[in-house]
Amino acid sequence: MNRWNESQLEAFAPKLHDMLVSRRFRELRGALAMFESQDIALLFEHFDDREMLLLYRLLPKETAAETFVEMEPDRQEYLIGMFSDVQLREVLEELYIDDTVELIEEMPAGVVKRILRNTDRESRETINRILHYPKDSAGSIMTTEYVRLDKDLTVSEAFERIRRNAVDKETVYTCYVTEKDRRLIGVVTVRDLLVASDDAVIGEIMEQNVIYAETHDDKESVALMMSKYDFLALPVVDTGNRLVGIVTYDDASDVIRDEATEDIEKMAAIVPTDKPYLKTGVLETWRKRIPWLLLLLLSATFTGAILAHYEEALSKVAVLTVFIPMLMGTAGNAGSQSSVAVIRALSLGEIKLRDVFRIVFKECRVALLCGITLGIVGFAKVVFLDGAEPLVAFVVCLTLAATVLLAKLFGSLLPLLAKRLGFDPAVMASPFITTIVDAISLLVYFAIATAIIPQLQL
Amino acid sequence: MNRWNESQLEAFAPKLHDMLVSRRFRELRGALAMFESQDIALLFEHFDDREMLLLYRLLPKETAAETFVEMEPDRQEYLIGMFSDVQLREVLEELYIDDTVELIEEMPAGVVKRILRNTDRESRETINRILHYPKDSAGSIMTTEYVRLDKDLTVSEAFERIRRNAVDKETVYTCYVTEKDRRLIGVVTVRDLLVASDDAVIGEIMEQNVIYAETHDDKESVALMMSKYDFLALPVVDTGNRLVGIVTYDDASDVIRDEATEDIEKMAAIVPTDKPYLKTGVLETWRKRIPWLLLLLLSATFTGAILAHYEEALSKVAVLTVFIPMLMGTAGNAGSQSSVAVIRALSLGEIKLRDVFRIVFKECRVALLCGITLGIVGFAKVVFLDGAEPLVAFVVCLTLAATVLLAKLFGSLLPLLAKRLGFDPAVMASPFITTIVDAISLLVYFAIATAIIPQLQL
Repeated sequence: MNRWNESQLEAFAPKLHDMLVSRRFRELRGALAMFESQDIALLFEHFDDREMLLLYRLLPKETAAETFVEMEPDRQEYLIGMFSDVQLREVLEELYIDDTVELIEEMPAGVVKRILRNTDRESRETINRILHYPKDSAGSIMTTEYVRLDKDLTVSEAFERIRRNAVDKETVYTCYVTEKDRRLIGVVTVRDLLVASDDAVIGEIMEQNVIYAETHDDKESVALMMSKYDFLALPVVDTGNRLVGIVTYDDASDVIRDEATEDIEKMAAIVPTDKPYLKTGVLETWRKRIPWLLLLLLSATFTGAILAHYEEALSKVAVLTVFIPMLMGTAGNAGSQSSVAVIRALSLGEIKLRDVFRIVFKECRVALLCGITLGIVGFAKVVFLDGAEPLVAFVVCLTLAATVLLAKLFGSLLPLLAKRLGFDPAVMASPFITTIVDAISLLVYFAIATAIIPQLQL
Repeated sequence: MNRWNESQLEAFAPKLHDMLVSRRFRELRGALAMFESQDIALLFEHFDDREMLLLYRLLPKETAAETFVEMEPDRQEYLIGMFSDVQLREVLEELYIDDTVELIEEMPAGVVKRILRNTDRESRETINRILHYPKDSAGSIMTTEYVRLDKDLTVSEAFERIRRNAVDKETVYTCYVTEKDRRLIGVVTVRDLLVASDDAVIGEIMEQNVIYAETHDDKESVALMMSKYDFLALPVVDTGNRLVGIVTYDDASDVIRDEATEDIEKMAAIVPTDKPYLKTGVLETWRKRIPWLLLLLLSATFTGAILAHYEEALSKVAVLTVFIPMLMGTAGNAGSQSSVAVIRALSLGEIKLRDVFRIVFKECRVALLCGITLGIVGFAKVVFLDGAEPLVAFVVCLTLAATVLLAKLFGSLLPLLAKRLGFDPAVMASPFITTIVDAISLLVYFAIATAIIPQLQL
């Protein structure tokens, strides 16, 4: 089987629909068996709630639970509403703890209560502990279903233990060795076990230099660390160095992708959402976009005030107006290049706050080169393309060089400043930088024009 | 051991330096043993080439090769230059095929020749085949070191085979079952094998619905597919359905991260680079940033021409100039919100080209809401904050509403159009959209102003 893409899935939907309408349930079961749970969840999007429930009930228990995890929250809520307590308990038993936690975070309070009521006491305690960790912490994305080994076991005893646990655990390939008090003392992979002889002792073959995260570590830096070391799973310990959970590679890779999306949205002046594009309603999209638009609209009061202040100068040398969009645009672009480069490098951990001098030194040199290039090309453009006087062109070209320098300086410094103050550097991207740089370039423009053009002098 | 962060590594460097100067090599060996290869490579950055070579020679063979893979290309090139052919061969033998391919892609021609001369014939053929796949294809990031099983093996025979192969293969946890002619017929995980009884036959327990990629599939969509299905590895087949390699989760996760960085750079009008921020020289950074700046500078000719055309109107009602930055800024922001949202959703596969009508319908409704909100707030701002006449405020508020609608329409359509034409949608982000939208908003502004303000009518 090849994987199905969305248009293939869309083509399957009507066939399944036909079988459903003509109640050919056995055929339906066979057809559904061709798909992975992720694709079944996508297929369900082509059915209404009631039809989806019918299809869902045809799935084998394990596939049903796996599909449930992949569904959109509104669909999950509907299903839970239709489940009896017994059915709900069956599904919950099949879920991994981290999936249950994610489900609970998405559901309204009444549903959460029902979920917790149908969870056994031990899981409930674990869930509550995980829910208690800060939103962006390693603790909040960890799972507690990992294989724990004693250092005194032999390799064949370890395999026996792994075999017994394989069904329940999210990963079996990395096993953790702890003392009786759950202090983490080593890690051993199934690959290590395969290579070792059967009677070797875990304590001797385990890796003792364990790389771990702490529950309150930032989940993005934990995910990047896992990617750096190519880990399948990373142990998470509490302040007493006791093992409390693990983060698996699939969740880490989701974190990296989602954080990139969040940064991109912030850079485009959108309040981040974790819903896919077509799943976000019109009103919600409006709510995510309007705050920054309003803020930036109001902040344009500054540029307006500057222009109003120089109204006389503009009426004397009207041609100056013509170059305002070009100057503001170029400065804005130059500034956002720098800010976005710095923001992304900060996110990826390529640069730290203490690199500030190296960053600024680099940006200044780049800005100088860009400023000179743009100044020369700008001069030629203004004289030959726009047919302006050389004196005006000279003003424009000086302004270009100066504002590009300032734009890149502000563009690189502001994200670092935001980080220093504990804000997300990503908000210091294009739109914000543009507004500041717009004002700066107007001020520089008029200062240079007033100094150079005779008509503007008293 | 906790992982080391960069500032801790920086603190270790002088200590290692002292040991190196006083030639305490045994102590150095012990100290280096505390670090993972990734961190040793980072530590090396604090030493000059000659010192680094001395340290490198102290590493155990396997660690040395692992560290070599993690180093920057300039460092690798220096080391290769210092290696004898025997030493080079030793390092190359320890590398996985995909790492060798990556190395070759980074090295100058002379070094590549030496590398290929010191590779055995079989590997050389594999390397050449992989190098031959298109740059962004699944084939170009795959490795050929995977475990292949026959369908007739029993579980314990399979374990024996995995055990013998464990050292050489990049992953052993997913094994591929092929016919004699290498046609892929199944996949089985070590977890499946652990759960099965020793005498079960592979052909019976393997998963026959294998999800695979083809060599020419786009690497980003392959990486996203692996992340969707939470795969550790994905088989890559040729057109004859023969298994030619696998993509592993760590490479897939690198692809997802790098493609996000590339999108972010393109959205900020930067020509993408794959080097980290501080590793990119000033000249190179200039080269990556100046093309778009120049292009956008020249495209500002349009806005300039529009303003020049309406010079008379502007001199009659000078206050109109004051609101130009606000109008262009707001339209630019509104447009880039839409374009960035669409670009990211396209990258993540959340939307397809055929969703164009749903997307445009959604953006239009959002734009209507945003336009009305901004129009009302804009009117109030212009009258009360800027103290302009209600008639001018009315012109501004109408322009705001109209341009936001147009900006969001263009912002959402242009990335889709780019994709349709086979370009990367990401180039249609903020800077490009802004330039188009700048021109549109000026045209709309003057059209509305001329229609409404009596002084501007003939």
